[in-house]
Amino acid sequence: MALMEISVVPLGTGTTSVGDYIARIKTLLEEKGLPHRLTDMGTIIEGEVSELLRLAAELHEIPFGAGAKRVFTVIKIDDRRDREVHLGEKVKSVEERLRSEG
Amino acid sequence: MALMEISVVPLGTGTTSVGDYIARIKTLLEEKGLPHRLTDMGTIIEGEVSELLRLAAELHEIPFGAGAKRVFTVIKIDDRRDREVHLGEKVKSVEERLRSEG
Amino acid sequence: MALMEISVVPLGTGTTSVGDYIARIKTLLEEKGLPHRLTDMGTIIEGEVSELLRLAAELHEIPFGAGAKRVFTVIKIDDRRDREVHLGEKVKSVEERLRSEG
Amino acid sequence: MALMEISVVPLGTGTTSVGDYIARIKTLLEEKGLPHRLTDMGTIIEGEVSELLRLAAELHEIPFGAGAKRVFTVIKIDDRRDREVHLGEKVKSVEERLRSEG
Repeated sequence: MALMEISVVPLGTGTTSVGDYIARIKTLLEEKGLPHRLTDMGTIIEGEVSELLRLAAELHEIPFGAGAKRVFTVIKIDDRRDREVHLGEKVKSVEERLRSEG
Repeated sequence: MALMEISVVPLGTGTTSVGDYIARIKTLLEEKGLPHRLTDMGTIIEGEVSELLRLAAELHEIPFGAGAKRVFTVIKIDDRRDREVHLGEKVKSVEERLRSEG
Repeated sequence: MALMEISVVPLGTGTTSVGDYIARIKTLLEEKGLPHRLTDMGTIIEGEVSELLRLAAELHEIPFGAGAKRVFTVIKIDDRRDREVHLGEKVKSVEERLRSEG
Repeated sequence: MALMEISVVPLGTGTTSVGDYIARIKTLLEEKGLPHRLTDMGTIIEGEVSELLRLAAELHEIPFGAGAKRVFTVIKIDDRRDREVHLGEKVKSVEERLRSEG
């Protein structure tokens, strides 16, 4: 399993607000039942890479459906095959390391 | 105030693990007393843009200090000047919107 | 048509060199006959978004086939629907603007 | 020396065009005499990391000076210390590799 972070940025909408698009993204992810987490800078989703990138194409489409004429999307994928990685584990592991050192 | 997300990726270290570098990043941010949040895909920090990018140069240096020979760093900045934005507010605002709609 | 830029970064390979992976990416794009351009920071490809992201999944897989255990991939998509955009046009348009001003 | 790629995306301007901002970025880089290259997805600049990130703060500011209320900036840094890297070398090296194989 890999983790993908996606930030979908609509241009030329005449507004600085993107909260509406992010709410639609979250609703879609909940309908699909995919493990995900919203952050201040994007949405992190867990899954297989090819499935995650198919989903990215859907999420990228959302602002066009709401009237945007141009969308800039940034995606980061972290995919390791030497062991399973799940949402939330990396943060937990760093926090445990710091606690045991501190 | 702006938000910056930074992911620092060391290459050529012969290991797939990056948790050690992330722990050092977190320790540095705590020493500096900067508002920040660890996610599975990076570290989000709140501050003025020029200050955030000075900090990014320091965080980017950490894996070199630990022996890496090449570092690939990805930074996203979200900076709005029409109103104040603080760490955690965007997520909270989307969740409230969804609750009020649901 | 949209433009996608992709940077595929293998971790834990014990080498700082990524040229070999980039050569394989370029070979694959030439076999597929897709309009693309190599830059120092990634590969830019022109196409429909869903097609580009299917391709991204293939390109992301290349270092695993060559022995990498972890791959970090960064993708940017610039997609405008108010008019056609093709590879090389944005750079040309900025250069023409500067020439006519200069 | 490192390479930095920067994409500066203004939001809420009511227009999908960003060519004007990119022209201002290019003009600033030429005035400063920094080695750089425009691509369809950003601007690549060669320099020391701390210098590059100071410059990034300046480039990020350009759309605000032109009336934007929110700016989303994406930066990638590729920094290797095992040998010198200059603008254009990576692309050239991959092309030579493919020619010698072909």
